[in-house]
Amino acid sequence: MAARLARKHPKPRPLRLALSGFGHVGRRFAELLGGPYGVILRRAGVEPRVTAIATGRHGLAVDPSGLSLPRALALVEDGCSLSPLHQGAPIASTRALVAAAPYDVLVELTPLSPLTGEPATAHVAAALRRGCHAVTANKGPVAHARRRLTALARRHGVRFLHEGAVMDGFPIFNLAERCLRGVTVRGFRGVLNSTTTRILSRMEAGVPFDVALGEAQAAGVAEADPAFDLDGWDAAVKTCALANALMGANLRPADVERASVRDLSAEAVEAAAREGKRWRLVARAERTGGRVTARVAPEELPLGDLLVSSGSDGVLVLDTDLMGEVGLWEGAGGVDQTAYAVLSDLLEIVAPTRR
Amino acid sequence: MAARLARKHPKPRPLRLALSGFGHVGRRFAELLGGPYGVILRRAGVEPRVTAIATGRHGLAVDPSGLSLPRALALVEDGCSLSPLHQGAPIASTRALVAAAPYDVLVELTPLSPLTGEPATAHVAAALRRGCHAVTANKGPVAHARRRLTALARRHGVRFLHEGAVMDGFPIFNLAERCLRGVTVRGFRGVLNSTTTRILSRMEAGVPFDVALGEAQAAGVAEADPAFDLDGWDAAVKTCALANALMGANLRPADVERASVRDLSAEAVEAAAREGKRWRLVARAERTGGRVTARVAPEELPLGDLLVSSGSDGVLVLDTDLMGEVGLWEGAGGVDQTAYAVLSDLLEIVAPTRR
Repeated sequence: MAARLARKHPKPRPLRLALSGFGHVGRRFAELLGGPYGVILRRAGVEPRVTAIATGRHGLAVDPSGLSLPRALALVEDGCSLSPLHQGAPIASTRALVAAAPYDVLVELTPLSPLTGEPATAHVAAALRRGCHAVTANKGPVAHARRRLTALARRHGVRFLHEGAVMDGFPIFNLAERCLRGVTVRGFRGVLNSTTTRILSRMEAGVPFDVALGEAQAAGVAEADPAFDLDGWDAAVKTCALANALMGANLRPADVERASVRDLSAEAVEAAAREGKRWRLVARAERTGGRVTARVAPEELPLGDLLVSSGSDGVLVLDTDLMGEVGLWEGAGGVDQTAYAVLSDLLEIVAPTRR
Repeated sequence: MAARLARKHPKPRPLRLALSGFGHVGRRFAELLGGPYGVILRRAGVEPRVTAIATGRHGLAVDPSGLSLPRALALVEDGCSLSPLHQGAPIASTRALVAAAPYDVLVELTPLSPLTGEPATAHVAAALRRGCHAVTANKGPVAHARRRLTALARRHGVRFLHEGAVMDGFPIFNLAERCLRGVTVRGFRGVLNSTTTRILSRMEAGVPFDVALGEAQAAGVAEADPAFDLDGWDAAVKTCALANALMGANLRPADVERASVRDLSAEAVEAAAREGKRWRLVARAERTGGRVTARVAPEELPLGDLLVSSGSDGVLVLDTDLMGEVGLWEGAGGVDQTAYAVLSDLLEIVAPTRR
């Protein structure tokens, strides 16, 4: 009986996690790991243990027996260094930590460097080369190096997963792989940058552009350098990530044609609103000839269009051969959703659905 | 080298299919099986072979070595019986065919008897008891007997899959199982009956109800008995199927509170349209206390609401604990999409993603 019980509830095996990056998403993930995420992972047969954390401004810490997450969170919240938690010889950098710390999965959440994909891509590659899995919510590595990283993972018998790269944790990449088998994605359209949606929505109500931008920055949703959102770079990086993963393209962000919402006048936005229309920064990709082309530009859409439906931080419509249009709509997105993407990727590593 | 090649491209093993029901969906599935679906299944390692077809008005045919689908399609299109294709002793009924024909998977597509779930439920149960898998695009068995049929399948080491039961082939059940692991669905809202959406859309343009209904019937999208669509029975059966599968409920269609779109006046629909609003037949489910309750009723919604976005034959928004709102939007749906649901369920049987 004891043996049967033991077989039914085997002792969870440890799953050692290294977090590179400990910002909003990393910290929320760490909090949830002490709550529901821990429960879910244990139910899936593993005991998660964070053995390494690397931060930009709060130093780093490695402890092979597992770091105290409440202590790590408290130190960082108090503006202190993680170094009191560190065990063993000093480690010079995040890069050195990724290369040498003991872990099974690298959770790569370093601040975004979208136009190069670094240092996230280097971290992911280093983890995969060590035979460790890599999970990221960073769109950079997917947009810049998905093909190479996926091949590297395959070569080392591990996984490179990135559900959080686009539309927070909304299952896009997993959906395409697991739920649309045999289907070819011929193209897509979407609204992938929520900052421009917020700003345009405010402008529709008559709020001047600068004020709307200031509000978005104050709310912490816009980048400090607004060019990244407004000029379509964020959407272009996401468009690349989607085209590369869903359409087998090999685009780089610079290959995506871009137009800025800054070229829209307040008058145009307000006039459209009066006519029951909405301007949005729309991302599109299609296969023409044998080539995938993509662009990001403001478009005027009727109010009944899915892409302008209210309450959403991201919408994507896949144009497919066997299933027609498949629309994916995220409600309000944020760190909780992105943290879930990390969890869902970890669950895939622990108990793969792919064969 | 030959051995390695053989391992890489093993000879596809046969996958014997019995089709109970050979209407629009069954025939489209058969057509596609001779084209892209066949290619996809062979790539997944099986050679599909339809060994039995049972129809309501064209007799039935069994051939253990595989029926000619072009011949079966031609016979039925010409209004003839399938009996010339039949091999072996006569078989009296669909029920007898399900019980005795040689097959690995029953594809259950008999005409809908939504208020009882029969005879589809009996067919599915009979197949499972024989140790055969069962796939259905019929919402009846899911709404009336999902718990029992799933348990039966587990007991016999086979699968009961029903992706096509709601929103044609849009991956709802598969998404929840494979892509939202660890997530609890707390409730949902959706527009699940496309006939009422069509009729209400026409009424918004000033077309009288009876004319709009006639158009929908002429287009073949409304049931001959309009009560099933208009009075919310179709949506209630789908709501049950969703609540039972996604929320662990054990509802029956009669448990779903219903209100009819017939109680809406043309004036109300037109007045709403003038104010930028839309009436739709909305399905909702929620957990209150320990109990799941569900209802289907016309609701007035603002034009920017996801549920009234244009070009869609079905929208569903899941309210979840870890991911917030997850919206699923189907473009124009039809037999192609429902046929895809059957393919996707077959792929799951051939190469399971679940562990």
